[in-house]
Amino acid sequence: MAESTPESNLQLRSKVTSDGQLELSFQRMAIGEPKPNELIVRVDAAPINPSDLALLLGPADLTQAKIEGDGENRVISVPLSDLHAKMLSPRKDLSICPGLEAAGTVVAAGEDCKDHIGKTVAIFGGSMYAEYRKISVEDCMIFPEGVDPADCASSFVNPLTALCMLDAFHREGHKAIIHTAAASNLGQMLVKLCNEDGIPLINIVRRESQEEVLRVLDAQYILNSESPTFVNDLTKAIRETEATLAFDAIGGGAMASTILQAMESVYAPKEFYIYGSNVHKQVYIYGILKPGPIEVHRTAGMAWSVSGLLMMNYIGRLDAPTAQKMKDRIVGNYDKAFKSRYLDTVALKDMLDVSILNTCNSRSTGKKYLLTPHAAS
Amino acid sequence: MAESTPESNLQLRSKVTSDGQLELSFQRMAIGEPKPNELIVRVDAAPINPSDLALLLGPADLTQAKIEGDGENRVISVPLSDLHAKMLSPRKDLSICPGLEAAGTVVAAGEDCKDHIGKTVAIFGGSMYAEYRKISVEDCMIFPEGVDPADCASSFVNPLTALCMLDAFHREGHKAIIHTAAASNLGQMLVKLCNEDGIPLINIVRRESQEEVLRVLDAQYILNSESPTFVNDLTKAIRETEATLAFDAIGGGAMASTILQAMESVYAPKEFYIYGSNVHKQVYIYGILKPGPIEVHRTAGMAWSVSGLLMMNYIGRLDAPTAQKMKDRIVGNYDKAFKSRYLDTVALKDMLDVSILNTCNSRSTGKKYLLTPHAAS
Repeated sequence: MAESTPESNLQLRSKVTSDGQLELSFQRMAIGEPKPNELIVRVDAAPINPSDLALLLGPADLTQAKIEGDGENRVISVPLSDLHAKMLSPRKDLSICPGLEAAGTVVAAGEDCKDHIGKTVAIFGGSMYAEYRKISVEDCMIFPEGVDPADCASSFVNPLTALCMLDAFHREGHKAIIHTAAASNLGQMLVKLCNEDGIPLINIVRRESQEEVLRVLDAQYILNSESPTFVNDLTKAIRETEATLAFDAIGGGAMASTILQAMESVYAPKEFYIYGSNVHKQVYIYGILKPGPIEVHRTAGMAWSVSGLLMMNYIGRLDAPTAQKMKDRIVGNYDKAFKSRYLDTVALKDMLDVSILNTCNSRSTGKKYLLTPHAAS
Repeated sequence: MAESTPESNLQLRSKVTSDGQLELSFQRMAIGEPKPNELIVRVDAAPINPSDLALLLGPADLTQAKIEGDGENRVISVPLSDLHAKMLSPRKDLSICPGLEAAGTVVAAGEDCKDHIGKTVAIFGGSMYAEYRKISVEDCMIFPEGVDPADCASSFVNPLTALCMLDAFHREGHKAIIHTAAASNLGQMLVKLCNEDGIPLINIVRRESQEEVLRVLDAQYILNSESPTFVNDLTKAIRETEATLAFDAIGGGAMASTILQAMESVYAPKEFYIYGSNVHKQVYIYGILKPGPIEVHRTAGMAWSVSGLLMMNYIGRLDAPTAQKMKDRIVGNYDKAFKSRYLDTVALKDMLDVSILNTCNSRSTGKKYLLTPHAAS
């Protein structure tokens, strides 16, 4: 591969072509001069999150992948079903560089932020699967000297989502939190944060092996949704904690409904009342692990909400000091509550490998890759 | 039948028996002395609302009805399926007198409210399908002399629900309202109120015949969900009005999702963005015309809420002056915006008639009966 400079910035590209293919390829493009408030960051590490996979691969079936060329000329094409091509039509012919977040080293800066040169920063805003990224100072968190970018590459998506969850918890006046897909990196952060803050947390996982991950972190409630006693266990935990709030990463199917119904069975008035409890029960859907429709069964009375939750929207409605406090907590605890774990690292030029893409795309807890663009393969 | 007095108050009763039958019957029971703040009201008129049918008949299949006895001794028994018997198990062996609301004449009163005797009042709180009802003064609206109880019998359920909808509209800062099952009595009230208050209202009906009902009231937007152009019509109306709020009486199926998706197609950013719009879209489900699960498809981005709405819960969270203002508007406009229409009246002693129950139970717009307990049959 050619030498790495911002003038010949190598990027990963994902495109939906007009003949219904998802096409992955590399592209080189000069990054241009920074504006006065902009930094040029060498991308040292970028996580491959489920939210990134949605943009990188979408619903493409990798068993159909056609591979051509090698090195920078590698192109992977995957034919899309008619349904999927239609779903993705809004991005037809757009070449997109994925990667929501990363961390790296400031190698150049505009006149208002020259003092940032040499610093380690975590950055947010897309187009991170590249060697370099030009970015506004406001979209950075600045880390102390000596912090390894690999250790602060996941400082936005999961940490801010977890802190938004806690913000909603306090703002809406709940007493405990229920979390699904709870052994994920985000789930582990939430366990640590709730332990620090003294918030009762009911963790729901889908596999026995995931229970152990949470036990190590001293999680108090660990429930397995595949257990035959799951609904009873959940109901008991809700009764003990008075939980009225849940965050669900799954989405499709009846999980949200199962949680609402378990809450309602606890809060329904003792005397029969056809409308059930007047205790408001809130489920936020923040993920899409199952892409089918969310089924809300009419078994939870009338006092409930199921809502989408997107960190970027939530942060956008916060006042600046509250948002800044969140970022300060992340920078101060990047190696503790906010530490992420990865299965392995992958160099940018090795990413167009079907077996690596397949592992990423399993979206299983413990299968997350860290892209390290400048590493040797 | 015996003479009508509060001492031998005749009531309709609905019970789920321990052997899995829904049993409808009559019962006589002395109403007892009023407390200082209580009134004895002769029930002159009580609507049979969909919400009343849920308690009166539930899911019982009237084609299976067994009829015994006549007059006050008439008993109708309907065998429940195992599923329905299980659903209704919380009310097993409870004898319930249905009827959420009514209007009538005060015939006796406790010492603190003797001045109410002779007045026409609308009353709320269940057990209205009876000749008399003892009730606290706070659960009444007092109407001017000369008002026919038949004209103010529906003063709580629909009028207060409509005013709660307008309250949510203002409180949450929306620009227009979408309403389904819009030709209902509630829908007609909403058309008149929105016309009075200058609020754009998009009415969705399911039959062509219902369009005319709304046209007569000068409804601006009348859409038919069975029309092949429905989604286009809805999208156009949302674009014109900037609606971000809907009230849905249907519940089961994809109506809420269809509305959210149409909104999203209007508010989604022009440039492709995988998370869609950050404009918050709210659907309240206030009815259960279709009892199946609500299906929320993942086609509306991430900024949305689907929530249950129950007038009693909503009113319970309002401050007293706001709730009083709503009641004053209802009393002042009972024969205008809040006027309800009925297919026919039925005497209490005639109500245990399968063909009348069947008509009530069709839950169709224009098929509402008004129970007039003391009328001759």
